[in-house]
Amino acid sequence: MSTPYYLIDKSKLLPNMEKIAWLRENSGAKSLLALKCFASWSVFDFMSEYMDGTTSSSLYEVKLGREKFPGETHAYSVAYADDEIDEVIASSDKILFNTIGQLERFDRQSASHIRGLRVNPGVSTSEFDLADPARPFSRLGEHDPDQIAKVIDRVSGFMFHNNCENDDFDRFDGMLSHIEQRFGFLIRQMDWISLGGGIHFTGEGYPLEKFAERLKRFAGENEVQVYLEPGEAAITGSTTLEVTVLDTLFNGKNLAIVDSSIEAHMLDLLIYRETAKVLPNAGPEEWMICGKSCLAGDIFGEFRFEEPLKPGDRLSMQDAAGYTMVKKNWFNGVKMPSIAVKELDGSVNVCRSFGYDDFASALS
Amino acid sequence: MSTPYYLIDKSKLLPNMEKIAWLRENSGAKSLLALKCFASWSVFDFMSEYMDGTTSSSLYEVKLGREKFPGETHAYSVAYADDEIDEVIASSDKILFNTIGQLERFDRQSASHIRGLRVNPGVSTSEFDLADPARPFSRLGEHDPDQIAKVIDRVSGFMFHNNCENDDFDRFDGMLSHIEQRFGFLIRQMDWISLGGGIHFTGEGYPLEKFAERLKRFAGENEVQVYLEPGEAAITGSTTLEVTVLDTLFNGKNLAIVDSSIEAHMLDLLIYRETAKVLPNAGPEEWMICGKSCLAGDIFGEFRFEEPLKPGDRLSMQDAAGYTMVKKNWFNGVKMPSIAVKELDGSVNVCRSFGYDDFASALS
Repeated sequence: MSTPYYLIDKSKLLPNMEKIAWLRENSGAKSLLALKCFASWSVFDFMSEYMDGTTSSSLYEVKLGREKFPGETHAYSVAYADDEIDEVIASSDKILFNTIGQLERFDRQSASHIRGLRVNPGVSTSEFDLADPARPFSRLGEHDPDQIAKVIDRVSGFMFHNNCENDDFDRFDGMLSHIEQRFGFLIRQMDWISLGGGIHFTGEGYPLEKFAERLKRFAGENEVQVYLEPGEAAITGSTTLEVTVLDTLFNGKNLAIVDSSIEAHMLDLLIYRETAKVLPNAGPEEWMICGKSCLAGDIFGEFRFEEPLKPGDRLSMQDAAGYTMVKKNWFNGVKMPSIAVKELDGSVNVCRSFGYDDFASALS
Repeated sequence: MSTPYYLIDKSKLLPNMEKIAWLRENSGAKSLLALKCFASWSVFDFMSEYMDGTTSSSLYEVKLGREKFPGETHAYSVAYADDEIDEVIASSDKILFNTIGQLERFDRQSASHIRGLRVNPGVSTSEFDLADPARPFSRLGEHDPDQIAKVIDRVSGFMFHNNCENDDFDRFDGMLSHIEQRFGFLIRQMDWISLGGGIHFTGEGYPLEKFAERLKRFAGENEVQVYLEPGEAAITGSTTLEVTVLDTLFNGKNLAIVDSSIEAHMLDLLIYRETAKVLPNAGPEEWMICGKSCLAGDIFGEFRFEEPLKPGDRLSMQDAAGYTMVKKNWFNGVKMPSIAVKELDGSVNVCRSFGYDDFASALS
């Protein structure tokens, strides 16, 4: 199978799915896949056996969720356009508005739909200002309990999304208490509350039982159905980006150039200035793994190997499911990775491959 | 015409094209469009009246150049793969290798083709480490004159690409002298030299005559055909991203949310932490213009306006040609901008629009 390709391994998805199903069983919380993170619909049927549906951040995502993922379909968008609102409503079970302004703008069209509002509690766990919904002047959700109270009769739920790669249960717990303290009188008037994504509850060592207990208590005390919107938590560890070494050179360090590019295929490594993960990352040989785009900083990272690398060697970039395929692009015309799925029986199917015609028709 | 869309205005392309043609007339330097920066082929016929062809950074780009842009077609890639080298050669007039290793690997296949080598002079004008080809441990080109001398009989040209948004002629001049000093004995054995891109010679106030004189002198003294590879210089100021305000809110600042996203449609603003350009950017009203993706930092910038913004207002993001359309992606499923061309007679044609099916088929 020719590289580059993303390989989604169902056997590695399974433990996440089982934790999600366990959590619902033990807390009542429903989990909706956040399509902004992962939208490779070839595995949606499989995931839908464990998850309750999808949430979205645009018209196209909500349509994809409705079309491909059995279960509930939540619509959210930072802003809906006039010419898409009807289709958003037709494609969703619930519609969540980012602001009171949007709720009012589309009040008539959405009046008979289940409606919610995004609430910004003003605190978050993001370590990146770029990704921090509680940053100063944030446009993400309504902040003021008094303003929200004025439209409370028009919505039956709220969405709080202020966790970000949060693997610390106590931190989650503390923030939820803060939310209850500030917005509790409003929450108790709702039927459902989404606590958003960014909670790394499928990670190793996460105190899942305490988490379940906390969610159950929150749901019980406030008499609401709780939703979670896992993105990374649903697909963590499930996918690799498979690449091949094309060239090696030495320029003060051992450099290996592979048939991929962080900017084109794992964009967040570039945006957040992070490095990829290669396993086992051990051995006497130290190599910098570089992409093949023209960008000087197109570097996956520096890793250790048992033997010197050479053209033809295959490498696997770990943890390549979240925010990769949904952001891939044709920068430099670098060949776009195929998307392949490894079934539970070990067989591999290529679900989508991309060629020159895809590249040319992405432009005009 | 519904937003978002990129609007390529031929009347604004024209001054750049005329400067490029003037430069060839007065210096002998040929200009090849760098497709990595701009590959919207609807305007290639128009551009080819003023430019000599294209250069590329991958198989797909070289194929696009050959297929859509009359003139010379240069192939370059940081690394070619075994299964693409034959097609690269078949699609190009010259092939440039990034390393001696690649030249040797494909020596047999490329023996009867015009060949060149990328040389890294170890100096650059990049202000961003990310984009600096002369950064430590750079994989971009060969550094050592002695090593290069050993393969000199196999190539007839070099490519130096070490300028980056360089609008300072003296800086260019100094670097070229440095290159001549260090690599002159090799350059004089070549037939052609590409000086790459990143020279902002179409910008206002650039001393084009001095530039032409310097290139002509370099060509004459070294007896080489000079190539330039303008990307941004070819298309600067030609294109806008047209967007519509969807929502406004106040959260410490006036915020307007538009139907676009820097991450999806003007990615370099995010990668390089820069702001967009809105004109005339004057008036008593100060507004932060935000994208509609879920990213907290999806912000075009803060600009001044005569009147308060309101839903339905149209805005134009200036200078949206370079490294935008070639990097656009489906992040958040945000509607991808159409690509439209404004002809010299003022008529506007939509060349490509994108819909839900494009989004869904970009995944699998």
